[in-house]
Amino acid sequence: MDPLSVALAQVNPTVGDLEGNAQLVLASARQAAAQGAQVVVFGEMVLTGYPIEDLALRTSFRVAVAERAEQLATELADAGLADLMVVAGCLGTASDGRPTNTALVLTGGRIEHVYTKQGLPNYGVFDEYRIFAAGEAPLRFGAAGHRVGVAICEDIWGAGGGLAHLGEAELDLLLVLNGSPYERGKSHQRTELVRQRAKHLDAAVAYVNLVGGQDDLVFDGGSFVLDAGGNLLGSSAQFAEEVRTVSVPALGRAGEDATAVAPDNDDDTGQMYDAIVLALADYVRKNGFTSVLLGLSGGIDSAVVATIAADAVGAQNVVGVAMPSKYSSSHSLADAEDLANRLGIDPQNYRVQPIEAMFDSFQGELALTGLAEENLQARIRGMILMGLSNDEGHLVLAPGNKSELAVGYSTIYGDAVGGYAPLKDVSKTRVWELARFRNARARQDGEIEPIPENSISKPPSAELRPDQRDDQSLPDYDILDPLLDAYVERAASQADLVQLGFGADVVDQVTMLVDRAEWKRRQYPLGPKVTALAFGRDRRLPVTNVFREHPGAAER
Amino acid sequence: MDPLSVALAQVNPTVGDLEGNAQLVLASARQAAAQGAQVVVFGEMVLTGYPIEDLALRTSFRVAVAERAEQLATELADAGLADLMVVAGCLGTASDGRPTNTALVLTGGRIEHVYTKQGLPNYGVFDEYRIFAAGEAPLRFGAAGHRVGVAICEDIWGAGGGLAHLGEAELDLLLVLNGSPYERGKSHQRTELVRQRAKHLDAAVAYVNLVGGQDDLVFDGGSFVLDAGGNLLGSSAQFAEEVRTVSVPALGRAGEDATAVAPDNDDDTGQMYDAIVLALADYVRKNGFTSVLLGLSGGIDSAVVATIAADAVGAQNVVGVAMPSKYSSSHSLADAEDLANRLGIDPQNYRVQPIEAMFDSFQGELALTGLAEENLQARIRGMILMGLSNDEGHLVLAPGNKSELAVGYSTIYGDAVGGYAPLKDVSKTRVWELARFRNARARQDGEIEPIPENSISKPPSAELRPDQRDDQSLPDYDILDPLLDAYVERAASQADLVQLGFGADVVDQVTMLVDRAEWKRRQYPLGPKVTALAFGRDRRLPVTNVFREHPGAAER
Repeated sequence: MDPLSVALAQVNPTVGDLEGNAQLVLASARQAAAQGAQVVVFGEMVLTGYPIEDLALRTSFRVAVAERAEQLATELADAGLADLMVVAGCLGTASDGRPTNTALVLTGGRIEHVYTKQGLPNYGVFDEYRIFAAGEAPLRFGAAGHRVGVAICEDIWGAGGGLAHLGEAELDLLLVLNGSPYERGKSHQRTELVRQRAKHLDAAVAYVNLVGGQDDLVFDGGSFVLDAGGNLLGSSAQFAEEVRTVSVPALGRAGEDATAVAPDNDDDTGQMYDAIVLALADYVRKNGFTSVLLGLSGGIDSAVVATIAADAVGAQNVVGVAMPSKYSSSHSLADAEDLANRLGIDPQNYRVQPIEAMFDSFQGELALTGLAEENLQARIRGMILMGLSNDEGHLVLAPGNKSELAVGYSTIYGDAVGGYAPLKDVSKTRVWELARFRNARARQDGEIEPIPENSISKPPSAELRPDQRDDQSLPDYDILDPLLDAYVERAASQADLVQLGFGADVVDQVTMLVDRAEWKRRQYPLGPKVTALAFGRDRRLPVTNVFREHPGAAER
Repeated sequence: MDPLSVALAQVNPTVGDLEGNAQLVLASARQAAAQGAQVVVFGEMVLTGYPIEDLALRTSFRVAVAERAEQLATELADAGLADLMVVAGCLGTASDGRPTNTALVLTGGRIEHVYTKQGLPNYGVFDEYRIFAAGEAPLRFGAAGHRVGVAICEDIWGAGGGLAHLGEAELDLLLVLNGSPYERGKSHQRTELVRQRAKHLDAAVAYVNLVGGQDDLVFDGGSFVLDAGGNLLGSSAQFAEEVRTVSVPALGRAGEDATAVAPDNDDDTGQMYDAIVLALADYVRKNGFTSVLLGLSGGIDSAVVATIAADAVGAQNVVGVAMPSKYSSSHSLADAEDLANRLGIDPQNYRVQPIEAMFDSFQGELALTGLAEENLQARIRGMILMGLSNDEGHLVLAPGNKSELAVGYSTIYGDAVGGYAPLKDVSKTRVWELARFRNARARQDGEIEPIPENSISKPPSAELRPDQRDDQSLPDYDILDPLLDAYVERAASQADLVQLGFGADVVDQVTMLVDRAEWKRRQYPLGPKVTALAFGRDRRLPVTNVFREHPGAAER
């Protein structure tokens, strides 16, 4: 029996864009056929985009999807691709009328087979038990003599192997359609899991992931095919669209000369950087923006966000505003301007807007003091950015990082304003790592390092009062960030944290700050999940909640 | 066999306040015993508060809850209540380590029985499949010769009757522990459902609900007992704590002189008003605030919010700020001051803060025009409120209503600032209804009508440009609100809406506005759900979503 030519169609759909997504499938199918593919596989729910959340519950949407899928089957045949087997994720309807997460096999001008996802993830960022009915029947079909099975994402992750639905069916090849969001270190887990499944099934496995950003998720692609022995037959890039055809041998098993699985790209920081760039680029594009706007303080957070923005939408589409106050240090403006020059921001898009006049007018009326006075400055800056955004149409970016968001060290309606927050899931420590990574990449590419060394090396400060520094209010970041990681991402208790070596006072201070900042986090802009546990729908805590890890910390 | 004395302990716990909630159970058990009760029943998860969301996943919390429950059993016995059977909702742990939603039967100084909830709601505002493992075993126990079964909330709602777990067990009385949030018209549904269940089981049913606000939910109490024939044996008030002991006859069946179920309070508007007052009062109290602050524009929304606030926390704890601009009409200030006087707001807590100076200083620097200039005024007001809040510690209330929120007719970081938005789920039409209801109640009680007639009768306007009126930007509310109701709450399609009689142009305009405002809604403060479908976790839609009901409306 001849090998089967299988194309991994790793594409970037947009939620709700049925026409655009169908065209993407059509164009990729053409490309696959040109590469000699007999089967082309797309990611999970490619025709609707993913995840669609409660849009699944809208009947008019389901009707439109069903019509567009039928039309696509015809269009494929009309394009001379009637012999190609196109396996694409879609939205269906169960016999009881509930929505389903499906894979369609389009061939010969019609929808030949439908598989319905059985494992419905309902943890972390996923709510699929909320919106979908689970399928019950396996799907196995023939392709040029190969016995091909279909699974969707959680089907291969779930408890009990999740593949129970394939029963005792003997397969040569399992196609897995995925919408698997990026998180730091996850691609290694995926490869290991798929290797186990391939060996267990004694079949090759083609793992096809979506690529692209959708709100707070970014799909990293990285599709691949393993043979039945767990050897790599072919793979696609991370963070880019690609149609790649791989030859899958008969019985799913390659000869002895098969390549072992390539080690994952070990550069976790580089992956995280690229993930955020893609998330931002897609948020901008898919929401109809063409430019972004942010405040440039001379500090590390805004410098990294500006650099990510320039990589995502082009430096010519980035507008940066320095907004000095009487408390700004002399280097703030210099560092901001240096950054703008290094990035190649258009001179008319680097603007300096002092806040003194507005600040004085507010204080002439209100005479605020202390924290209220500090917040006032941040809010004037927020208003300037929103005013320019309303006038000129740019998407405002919030510069906040995960450490700040965790402890509430930001001003709501001040530095927290914006439509997207690229560093929302990046700790301060990792913000510095991203900066160093990006500068190193520039050096490697023979380009100007975008981020001024001074922005990286100076002590962090909000500059809202004379000689302010973060470490006056918070523990040093080399203590704070590991503590937050343990408390937030791993749900460590007070006792656990003390045992990890953190002082009891610091534990009380930090856990209390985290618990009390929930209301601010609820109003924070979206930003991409890049860790195992991001703030937002990944971590759903009540605002009203008086439980404290340490009883002594209960007063508020 | 003698009747069984069953106390409905309708109490208001606080999420995470294990000590306070245990004391509440203890005090209510004492009260029940004093009333001669043999069994006292509390609402769902009364010991932890409800819903606890991902707090269920925190091991240290589960450990603390288990310890507090054991201690409570001892305390009850120590208080001389060893013979009383106390049935209280709690958080448990399944054999596989996952959290469970349980009912404990505390008696004789120990936890005598544990029932685990089997029906886990995972729709609307509920995420219980996400956080809980389902129970599998029924619970039936004896109380003074009566055969008593236990169910928790969804157990009696779910498909197939949800009572399958009770099997063929013959019961005299079913105890149902509930955390059933208020929504308009729901209490009638509850009574009907419980009546069916009582008849089906041929047993009396004691339905005990929580009371009180928790973030975006408000539990309305309204506990009741029906006999096996569906006749009312006793009931508790809505929106108030109450311990009421009801005598349940042998075999769960009352004599022929039993009272038929009392009709629900048909005053939906009054119920909604009281629900919002309770939600706000509890948000303030449970989050440690003692006072609230809002802008008073002279318009209907802020007038109703101020009145709700005065009812919730006392007029002496309400601070109102009128913030006139050059576009404010002459009646704005007069109506705001009239409201403050009618409510009895402390004269030093009614303040007038013109925005002219700040507005001029911003415009001197930025020279914004059009929408940006309008938003600037709203944002200056937002900053003033946040500055005063930071300085004086008041909770800021956002005055926005559901109609505004739906179509994005508000200024993010402007009138949308705040920690709580009492009218978030109330359409503009219903805001007027609430105003008329509250004034009528005042008349009935011989008190001053709180809301100035002029605030009710004048055409709504944001007053951000000369002679602005809402109907210049939006359809009249008598068209807009029914359209929103159909599109948002009932997910009507474009074709449905046209068939309902709305013009195609209006449908396109409104559905487009709704779809495009999702990003603003994500950053909006919490507010109480009072309808079948509220914005927030009840309706989870992607921000990035280009699906439009009408293809012609797809441009943005």
